[in-house]
Amino acid sequence: MTPILTAHDLNAFLEAEIHNLAASIRVLELQDDWLLARMSVSGSHLRPGGTISGPALFTLADVAMYLGILAHIGIVPLAVTTSASIDFMRKPAGGVDLLARTRLLKLGKNLAVGDVVISSKGSDLPVARASLTYALPQKP
Amino acid sequence: MTPILTAHDLNAFLEAEIHNLAASIRVLELQDDWLLARMSVSGSHLRPGGTISGPALFTLADVAMYLGILAHIGIVPLAVTTSASIDFMRKPAGGVDLLARTRLLKLGKNLAVGDVVISSKGSDLPVARASLTYALPQKP
Amino acid sequence: MTPILTAHDLNAFLEAEIHNLAASIRVLELQDDWLLARMSVSGSHLRPGGTISGPALFTLADVAMYLGILAHIGIVPLAVTTSASIDFMRKPAGGVDLLARTRLLKLGKNLAVGDVVISSKGSDLPVARASLTYALPQKP
Amino acid sequence: MTPILTAHDLNAFLEAEIHNLAASIRVLELQDDWLLARMSVSGSHLRPGGTISGPALFTLADVAMYLGILAHIGIVPLAVTTSASIDFMRKPAGGVDLLARTRLLKLGKNLAVGDVVISSKGSDLPVARASLTYALPQKP
Repeated sequence: MTPILTAHDLNAFLEAEIHNLAASIRVLELQDDWLLARMSVSGSHLRPGGTISGPALFTLADVAMYLGILAHIGIVPLAVTTSASIDFMRKPAGGVDLLARTRLLKLGKNLAVGDVVISSKGSDLPVARASLTYALPQKP
Repeated sequence: MTPILTAHDLNAFLEAEIHNLAASIRVLELQDDWLLARMSVSGSHLRPGGTISGPALFTLADVAMYLGILAHIGIVPLAVTTSASIDFMRKPAGGVDLLARTRLLKLGKNLAVGDVVISSKGSDLPVARASLTYALPQKP
Repeated sequence: MTPILTAHDLNAFLEAEIHNLAASIRVLELQDDWLLARMSVSGSHLRPGGTISGPALFTLADVAMYLGILAHIGIVPLAVTTSASIDFMRKPAGGVDLLARTRLLKLGKNLAVGDVVISSKGSDLPVARASLTYALPQKP
Repeated sequence: MTPILTAHDLNAFLEAEIHNLAASIRVLELQDDWLLARMSVSGSHLRPGGTISGPALFTLADVAMYLGILAHIGIVPLAVTTSASIDFMRKPAGGVDLLARTRLLKLGKNLAVGDVVISSKGSDLPVARASLTYALPQKP
């Protein structure tokens, strides 16, 4: 399943349409059914104790999957998450960027399903694992 | 199971420790095993198309559950989310605050489990439903 | 949202169509958007150590939600589970029937979403909590 | 992370301790952090319409993960599932065995986390994807 957009297209979309995410999230690589994204970690992602907050990791997983789907169906802003489940497994390394490896498992007419493994840059141990389902807009 | 903190205590904690959330999230009511929180919706929560983003709803669910647990164990910053699953069911009403009704289902030695139903203020129809598990810090 | 079938209709469907479940699962009560079902516990539900197996609890949650949806759309065998998440919270009481309280949160054109709380008969403490999404067959 | 048991050990455990599963589930291969299991599909796994039931797929995922954990910690019957989420993506091929590829993502002191991708034998398209968390018994 070859994507119809490039990593560059997806980053341009982020910058043009989702400013508040484009500052921290960037697509690094895009292949047939997977996408690698990076999140630069900053103060607003932190919780007391210095941990990266669950919502910040969820945001990365959700956006990486969104971009992985858009890569195959084009820029369609109406794709929306219908469900997600996420496991937080390890404390990420302090002050280190996060990498999200996204795998598209199904791209159907109505629903797309995939999963994401997040790790700290330079480590193989997963920080979090998420699976997400998106509802796709119906063609008229 | 009577809480050991009040709604006022929890809001003071939010303001003192999690500034970036205290601006939008506030505990309205606290009872034995449930908590009602409100999120004021602003531009940073929005996605293209005007929908409130999945991560913003996840943040509300995650924080509401965190506060519901702290209400029973006291201010313990090291409680961390270990897993969460969330269903997004309806588009929230535009420009309307969100309410999160949080129910604590288990408060064990190691893990706390609960669920959250989110709706737009003034509506009974759920916008999202989440279940969350938190790992609790062990007493020395 | 008033159901179009009765508890009796649903039990007749179970007996006619899903023999292997009808022996253990039965609808006790059906109201607007919730359904109460019972599972009689037997040896085949047990794991080493005497615990009721996770799959047996999952089966109860899945079937209770399936019946809760059929109650509103009629006997439509093609409704299928698309996703489920379940938390196992407490060991059920030994040799005691399980009760599943099912709440229908959304009944849309394509998807139905609900959650289920399972407890041992005679106890208020939840044994398990599940949320499930079903894809609904499209009308021709 | 090298397993301390073999596929043969795990199959012997299934046969000795979980008779009702040993008839249909078998470990085919075991490597460092993953395990391949097979489920022979029979009538009891079917729902009206000929689909393999969600609970049958859940059982396969749950048991495969259980065995994947036991492979590393030894035969410890008290490991129990604490949470699971599963996505059902495609109808499995009729009358064909199912394969479950299990990946252990975390083996901590208290919790083990992993995911499972299930497909029909002879196909690469995933039928279902599950993630599971097990609580591990504490050493005395």
